[in-house]
Amino acid sequence: MSTLGFIEYQDASPEVRAIYDDIMTTRKTDYINNFWKAIAHDPPTLKRTWEDIKQIMAPGALDPLTKEMIYVAVSVTNQCSYCIASHTVSAHQKGMTDAMFKELMAVVGMANETNKMVTGYQVEIDDCFKNGLRS
Amino acid sequence: MSTLGFIEYQDASPEVRAIYDDIMTTRKTDYINNFWKAIAHDPPTLKRTWEDIKQIMAPGALDPLTKEMIYVAVSVTNQCSYCIASHTVSAHQKGMTDAMFKELMAVVGMANETNKMVTGYQVEIDDCFKNGLRS
Amino acid sequence: MSTLGFIEYQDASPEVRAIYDDIMTTRKTDYINNFWKAIAHDPPTLKRTWEDIKQIMAPGALDPLTKEMIYVAVSVTNQCSYCIASHTVSAHQKGMTDAMFKELMAVVGMANETNKMVTGYQVEIDDCFKNGLRS
Amino acid sequence: MSTLGFIEYQDASPEVRAIYDDIMTTRKTDYINNFWKAIAHDPPTLKRTWEDIKQIMAPGALDPLTKEMIYVAVSVTNQCSYCIASHTVSAHQKGMTDAMFKELMAVVGMANETNKMVTGYQVEIDDCFKNGLRS
Amino acid sequence: MSTLGFIEYQDASPEVRAIYDDIMTTRKTDYINNFWKAIAHDPPTLKRTWEDIKQIMAPGALDPLTKEMIYVAVSVTNQCSYCIASHTVSAHQKGMTDAMFKELMAVVGMANETNKMVTGYQVEIDDCFKNGLRS
Amino acid sequence: MSTLGFIEYQDASPEVRAIYDDIMTTRKTDYINNFWKAIAHDPPTLKRTWEDIKQIMAPGALDPLTKEMIYVAVSVTNQCSYCIASHTVSAHQKGMTDAMFKELMAVVGMANETNKMVTGYQVEIDDCFKNGLRS
Repeated sequence: MSTLGFIEYQDASPEVRAIYDDIMTTRKTDYINNFWKAIAHDPPTLKRTWEDIKQIMAPGALDPLTKEMIYVAVSVTNQCSYCIASHTVSAHQKGMTDAMFKELMAVVGMANETNKMVTGYQVEIDDCFKNGLRS
Repeated sequence: MSTLGFIEYQDASPEVRAIYDDIMTTRKTDYINNFWKAIAHDPPTLKRTWEDIKQIMAPGALDPLTKEMIYVAVSVTNQCSYCIASHTVSAHQKGMTDAMFKELMAVVGMANETNKMVTGYQVEIDDCFKNGLRS
Repeated sequence: MSTLGFIEYQDASPEVRAIYDDIMTTRKTDYINNFWKAIAHDPPTLKRTWEDIKQIMAPGALDPLTKEMIYVAVSVTNQCSYCIASHTVSAHQKGMTDAMFKELMAVVGMANETNKMVTGYQVEIDDCFKNGLRS
Repeated sequence: MSTLGFIEYQDASPEVRAIYDDIMTTRKTDYINNFWKAIAHDPPTLKRTWEDIKQIMAPGALDPLTKEMIYVAVSVTNQCSYCIASHTVSAHQKGMTDAMFKELMAVVGMANETNKMVTGYQVEIDDCFKNGLRS
Repeated sequence: MSTLGFIEYQDASPEVRAIYDDIMTTRKTDYINNFWKAIAHDPPTLKRTWEDIKQIMAPGALDPLTKEMIYVAVSVTNQCSYCIASHTVSAHQKGMTDAMFKELMAVVGMANETNKMVTGYQVEIDDCFKNGLRS
Repeated sequence: MSTLGFIEYQDASPEVRAIYDDIMTTRKTDYINNFWKAIAHDPPTLKRTWEDIKQIMAPGALDPLTKEMIYVAVSVTNQCSYCIASHTVSAHQKGMTDAMFKELMAVVGMANETNKMVTGYQVEIDDCFKNGLRS
């Protein structure tokens, strides 16, 4: 369950059902996951969150699989059990093989290690990194 | 500077120079960044960390650019200034365009948002996500 | 259970019972939650933590409900399941309606998103923000 | 500066200027802060982020000052320097007195402490907290 | 279970068995825990991670018990349930008494509190701390 | 500086001076660091925080140096620049050698790595770890 419970499709208002329909159409599925059913108690938030996800996760300069793996990387770093579970499955559905998964985990682990080491050693940023991506 | 200072190439022991040489050869650069120069005060750690990075970041099921962008995603989530600065430049050198960077930031921001929302709503994991990648 | 188990009221020393009594009197309840029963294995810590909470969460420039919602916001950001569960209920008991809860979650989500975005873009702090609250 | 630099009002496209105008109108200010100027390199993200903020931070069941203080609480917990600096000033502008600020900091500190203690003691959630806000 | 399942000793390849054997020999146990059995799906990662742990956790300027308690402190701060559970037991096996455990928890809680307070107050680093450990 | 500025000894109220005196006496120093001078704007918080620190960091089942190194470990994991700077110096003053510091950093890095890996692999806790320290 969740703090406010779940809004199931059959119990949803027309406004919420419209969003559920768009999720299912966009994702080519007939399944609404617990996260959507939980935040559906707040229809403006459901709508806003879904519209943001739809825009952000669409194919672009980065393909959907890469975006999904980035989502997993963030969720692991944040220790978010729900998101790790759901996005690992999503990434698989979008083409992540077991081999990709293992490499993803290795990179996430290593990045967490060196993030802390460089901070623990109080290393100042090199001048050549201070221009970011500005030419 | 850093907690113990930097070991510059000209002041390094043969052991440390060998690792610096391998970093420069592998990365096709003549630059040793501040992170390496800081942890070089602990040669076993320098060696172990470099060997791990070399193995983990090599091309595999995931290409080096994807791995570098995952590294940025973790570093942003961890709020690690040094790593954001250095890995943003690395990712660019490996082919990350400004368009890719912007999408990467959007995904990282969104993932951090929904990680917290799903946890705040105490949403339990759907049964269909509980099998991970096990068939 | 917990790492060291729980100290139930009936098994508690006079010192611990005195603190349990003060918690129940202050909070107008006859319930001692698992957190207190767990740290009661360390009576100085139980005492210190309770005295701190009592002082910090008392009505002041901020009312108890606002303080409780801040506690929830921090607990969600830290992904602390126990604290989210307990402080959500506490906030409700202090007057948090479902509508307030939903807005609290939306703000927490959004803040986590922009925290990471501004850091990912390596944005420097505006001069006009550098004086804090000093006139 | 920032990773991609800033888009100043005078150099902005009509699309970006329209968003800058809406920010200034809504916030009753003639100032566009560095965060907006940084993400303006990605107009869809600027637009989406501003629209989200405008909706989420509007007066509702929670007033704008409470929402701003929650934003500060999250930013402190995430150790985000930019957001702490900017939202501390925003909260002050919305009515946060020094007394409120001090209490906010005390609550944030205490919540971070007990979040970690309860997790360190591996305390299981009390049954009476497991129903969330569901009656 | 775990995302890819567990590799049990009897089902392991010679390469993985060799690492399991080394873990058991080094740790003087006949038990392989779930973490090793999970990452064993990625033999290079299993090997690299075990070799790193073996090197890092060996007696040195810090004794194994101190290192194990530091491991617990990090795991609690990161809210990592698995690591808190496993490293609390390891620390106990290496000599951590209940009294030590309680003090460890108190320090971890306090450090998390003041970390956030000093950041929330935007305190700049004292000059006398800026030289790190450099004489 | 800091959000509210610093309260210097010469400008402090008798109440605050008494706490400054106790800090200097307890720590055998004539220096009050920026953290204390910042929170001194909130005398109850200054007093409560100092009293807590004094109690928690006193010699006990864990010696002061071990407690200080745990403090550093937490501060690094939280990426708290001020605390890393100040507690690294404190630990050195309490006896931490460069060799100890390097090992501390290596353990903190490794713990952060495996914390994330075990969570990313969604590893369930072994039965033999579920009893904590309860016999």
